[in-house]
Amino acid sequence: MPSIAFLGPRGTFAEAALRSLPISDGAELIAAPSTPAALDLARDGSVDYALVPIESSVEGSVPLTLDGLATGSPLVIVDEAVQHVSFALMALPGVVLGDVQRIAAHPHAHAQVRNWIAANLPDAHVVDAHSNGAAAAGLHDRTYEAAIGAAVAADIYGLQVLADGIEDTAEAITRFVLVARPGMLPAPTGADKTTLTLFIRQDTPGALLSILTEFAVRGINLTRIESRPTRKHLGDYSFSIDIEGHIADARVSEALMGLHRICLDVRFLGSYPRHDGKAPVLRSGVTDADFAEAQIWIDHLKENS
Amino acid sequence: MPSIAFLGPRGTFAEAALRSLPISDGAELIAAPSTPAALDLARDGSVDYALVPIESSVEGSVPLTLDGLATGSPLVIVDEAVQHVSFALMALPGVVLGDVQRIAAHPHAHAQVRNWIAANLPDAHVVDAHSNGAAAAGLHDRTYEAAIGAAVAADIYGLQVLADGIEDTAEAITRFVLVARPGMLPAPTGADKTTLTLFIRQDTPGALLSILTEFAVRGINLTRIESRPTRKHLGDYSFSIDIEGHIADARVSEALMGLHRICLDVRFLGSYPRHDGKAPVLRSGVTDADFAEAQIWIDHLKENS
Amino acid sequence: MPSIAFLGPRGTFAEAALRSLPISDGAELIAAPSTPAALDLARDGSVDYALVPIESSVEGSVPLTLDGLATGSPLVIVDEAVQHVSFALMALPGVVLGDVQRIAAHPHAHAQVRNWIAANLPDAHVVDAHSNGAAAAGLHDRTYEAAIGAAVAADIYGLQVLADGIEDTAEAITRFVLVARPGMLPAPTGADKTTLTLFIRQDTPGALLSILTEFAVRGINLTRIESRPTRKHLGDYSFSIDIEGHIADARVSEALMGLHRICLDVRFLGSYPRHDGKAPVLRSGVTDADFAEAQIWIDHLKENS
Amino acid sequence: MPSIAFLGPRGTFAEAALRSLPISDGAELIAAPSTPAALDLARDGSVDYALVPIESSVEGSVPLTLDGLATGSPLVIVDEAVQHVSFALMALPGVVLGDVQRIAAHPHAHAQVRNWIAANLPDAHVVDAHSNGAAAAGLHDRTYEAAIGAAVAADIYGLQVLADGIEDTAEAITRFVLVARPGMLPAPTGADKTTLTLFIRQDTPGALLSILTEFAVRGINLTRIESRPTRKHLGDYSFSIDIEGHIADARVSEALMGLHRICLDVRFLGSYPRHDGKAPVLRSGVTDADFAEAQIWIDHLKENS
Repeated sequence: MPSIAFLGPRGTFAEAALRSLPISDGAELIAAPSTPAALDLARDGSVDYALVPIESSVEGSVPLTLDGLATGSPLVIVDEAVQHVSFALMALPGVVLGDVQRIAAHPHAHAQVRNWIAANLPDAHVVDAHSNGAAAAGLHDRTYEAAIGAAVAADIYGLQVLADGIEDTAEAITRFVLVARPGMLPAPTGADKTTLTLFIRQDTPGALLSILTEFAVRGINLTRIESRPTRKHLGDYSFSIDIEGHIADARVSEALMGLHRICLDVRFLGSYPRHDGKAPVLRSGVTDADFAEAQIWIDHLKENS
Repeated sequence: MPSIAFLGPRGTFAEAALRSLPISDGAELIAAPSTPAALDLARDGSVDYALVPIESSVEGSVPLTLDGLATGSPLVIVDEAVQHVSFALMALPGVVLGDVQRIAAHPHAHAQVRNWIAANLPDAHVVDAHSNGAAAAGLHDRTYEAAIGAAVAADIYGLQVLADGIEDTAEAITRFVLVARPGMLPAPTGADKTTLTLFIRQDTPGALLSILTEFAVRGINLTRIESRPTRKHLGDYSFSIDIEGHIADARVSEALMGLHRICLDVRFLGSYPRHDGKAPVLRSGVTDADFAEAQIWIDHLKENS
Repeated sequence: MPSIAFLGPRGTFAEAALRSLPISDGAELIAAPSTPAALDLARDGSVDYALVPIESSVEGSVPLTLDGLATGSPLVIVDEAVQHVSFALMALPGVVLGDVQRIAAHPHAHAQVRNWIAANLPDAHVVDAHSNGAAAAGLHDRTYEAAIGAAVAADIYGLQVLADGIEDTAEAITRFVLVARPGMLPAPTGADKTTLTLFIRQDTPGALLSILTEFAVRGINLTRIESRPTRKHLGDYSFSIDIEGHIADARVSEALMGLHRICLDVRFLGSYPRHDGKAPVLRSGVTDADFAEAQIWIDHLKENS
Repeated sequence: MPSIAFLGPRGTFAEAALRSLPISDGAELIAAPSTPAALDLARDGSVDYALVPIESSVEGSVPLTLDGLATGSPLVIVDEAVQHVSFALMALPGVVLGDVQRIAAHPHAHAQVRNWIAANLPDAHVVDAHSNGAAAAGLHDRTYEAAIGAAVAADIYGLQVLADGIEDTAEAITRFVLVARPGMLPAPTGADKTTLTLFIRQDTPGALLSILTEFAVRGINLTRIESRPTRKHLGDYSFSIDIEGHIADARVSEALMGLHRICLDVRFLGSYPRHDGKAPVLRSGVTDADFAEAQIWIDHLKENS
């Protein structure tokens, strides 16, 4: 039975995301106080896995995760989960909408439900909470009547949902990654993703183009890219990148070697199945069979020319 | 005398960044409760300018700012300020380090001073605060003895600094942008930056490469790139990008037109002087003089061939 | 009534190509002894036009033409003609196939009809001729019974065609260009070609890629490219290139300016209608309308941002 | 003792080029009547090698050679020779410059010495010859007094050189290649060249760029490129290309495999030492050691992630 740390407190979207992964069935779930804390638990062997957010349409990219993985002793991503971010208005049992005068919400959550509150509770006062989970948990202190957060918190804290799906935009999602110490590389499924951090010497016009060309020449698609402003060493730069494909795919493996040769450093952060199971649309010439056939061709040429 | 909204509360790094800009001298500074609120004040004419964070090595990119600028009625960036993020431990007058048992800190700030606290106040309990400013302001409630935050807060809230520069990494910075309604495009200085949001139809291997090629072929360097996971319309994608140069530069103007022709949409978010005054190192053939000379050449050819 | 020099002697494929152009109707046609001589006649005003071969599947590229245009006082291509190279076996009236013991042929022509001769006149001896026209003209000297050449020569020299279409491969073509002194730039037709000679400083990996990128970024297709081994100055290199499009097309004009900025020299050798009238298949975003619309967009941005 | 066919007749630049190669010492040299004939002798085992011209600043590229190698049973280039094209005016012993009234010259040779003749023998009549060698050999028939050609012909035909180095441009060169049946691949020397014919499906903007990108991404320089107008099958196209490097070099081998995957066909025409012994200037990351190190890195990653 594996143990899995996740970014707590309980009742947040992280927990909902974790529960969407089959590995959580019967696992020991441990709420960590922060992303670095969750990663540390995985690093020192206290848990087998840690689930941490990596990018979010609500809170953007998550540098604590990206940096936490890009530095320190190696951790690799072995799975991902995408959580649709849907907010509920929750209250203690017996409270009705008309009772609500004060609402606790994390500022980011507040920003997502602004229109709904203006339309439905125009006179309510919104107070800041540290997290969605904390807003829900705090209802028992009765300094406010309602909390904004993930509906999963209602079960955990014994609350009722006054209104669900109250977010102004239906498109908000957060992507979480399940990380582990190296040695558990998932087998390729044909619908995989690989995460990398690339360190380059300079932010010249050619540098990023060279990186993308290593992918493009082998028909590899990027699904995320982010330049990182932090510079540990003068003149250095880094990119955090997700690509389609698995390190075991010939095209990915050859691209990684190409990047290894042109980058200051390439940090491999895991190959893992895509949450949506969507296989890449490959252009002709980049399947494993194409690479194998080309290898046979060149070997024949070298021996017989 | 201009009025400028900034991401409050007072005493945060945003205020420190704003005060580093000459325009703040004698200006009316208004602390807004959130980034969207600050942008709204600028949009509706309540203030002349708003200063909001756009990227941070502490909190990553700031989607509320990026999205706030990329949608809604136009606002453009007219200046930027980069604030070195240095944390101080502050307390009410008379308190000494030995008195500190509880420390208030925003979780992100806490993550940055973890090592210092472990070494200097190993037994202290850290409580969450909503913001750096709130941590400092809350000292007057005396539920904790010390607060982590920007030293600027000490002046504002009548505190003393027990220790300064306590961040574990000396490299942390936050970049803020000063935005205004269109019509105040700063003149080019030779050391400018331009911010864009590019919307594309698909995340194909070629799409990002095509975008970067439009820049590279005209010798334009990127200083920031971030793919955005939110998809408003099925199949759409966007990139938030900063480049070196000013829309009035011929190479930038031609590149923007090229992007306009290949992207679903190009949102121009302003050209403005770089905070560091660093002029780009241009390869041969891409100065305004080079473009002007080429125009004369082609005009001559067309008329005389 | 224009005068047109062509690569003689009379009765060659050059004359056939010239007669395929409407401009030859009623024109004074002058056979020049060589390509440089034909170009000189056009340069010094002795003729209005010169028709010279530029590439051939029989004789390859024609450096005398390429170099003749790339250097010296400017001449520009105003039209092109593609001549299918079909060989006939010709003889004086009264001669029949069984009489043929010796055949005169230019070595290149001989190479093209080798199989036919082996099958039909296995015992005939083939003697070298200076040109296809000379082979036909020489029949009157009766040192050989038959000549290989263009059927057009039969009319000119009073011969009969013993066999036609005797070439081994049906695909051989020669492309001719009609050149004139500058000042007669043909109007764009929507199905045009432009010929250029590009001089670069070095044959580095990046140089040719940079050149092609200037075209590709504007959706321009190449139909011919040839690096030239002659180096007039140490370290210099040149490419002779045909592209789809007319200098009056916005995408071509912008690409030419881009090349002018990165090349040591760009020699414009004319924009002219394609012989086959085939319009290019343009990707979205590169028509004149797209360029005009982008210009309006950027002008609006510059004025209103 | 090897036997080597060359493009005859004797006394041409081809023979001079062949004699510049050490392999010709003591070899049996056979003058073939044409390039296809020379290639056929090598193909059917009549000779061990054939020396044929591949490109020339006088006569351009040599399609008979390029096509002769690109089709038919395989022949590969095993060496190259570059012959400086320098013309001499030759005559029978006893003839002096003042005696010369008629000069025999191949038209291409004539084009190269036009200025010298105008300055030194303005009244001489120039008659066409089939080849440089034929011009020299024909002196014994006494229908003309002097011949233009390679000085090597003077020894062969018992002539004297009236004037040497009479070419108008000192830069003319012809490159010859020594070809053999497969099985004699020269070992890499560190200063090698590889010749390829690439067949592609369409002449789209992307096709040539894709080909060049396969080279550029691996730091490989092109030294010659020529698109070929002949299209055997509707819509097909080909490029004849020389690159720096040897098929045994990791970067070349990987690039060839990449081309094999994207092209309709890749015809390998040999890796051989450069005549000038000039080693390529390699960018960082593309040596065999770099490739080997990257392979170790990826193997380690795959096993331990």
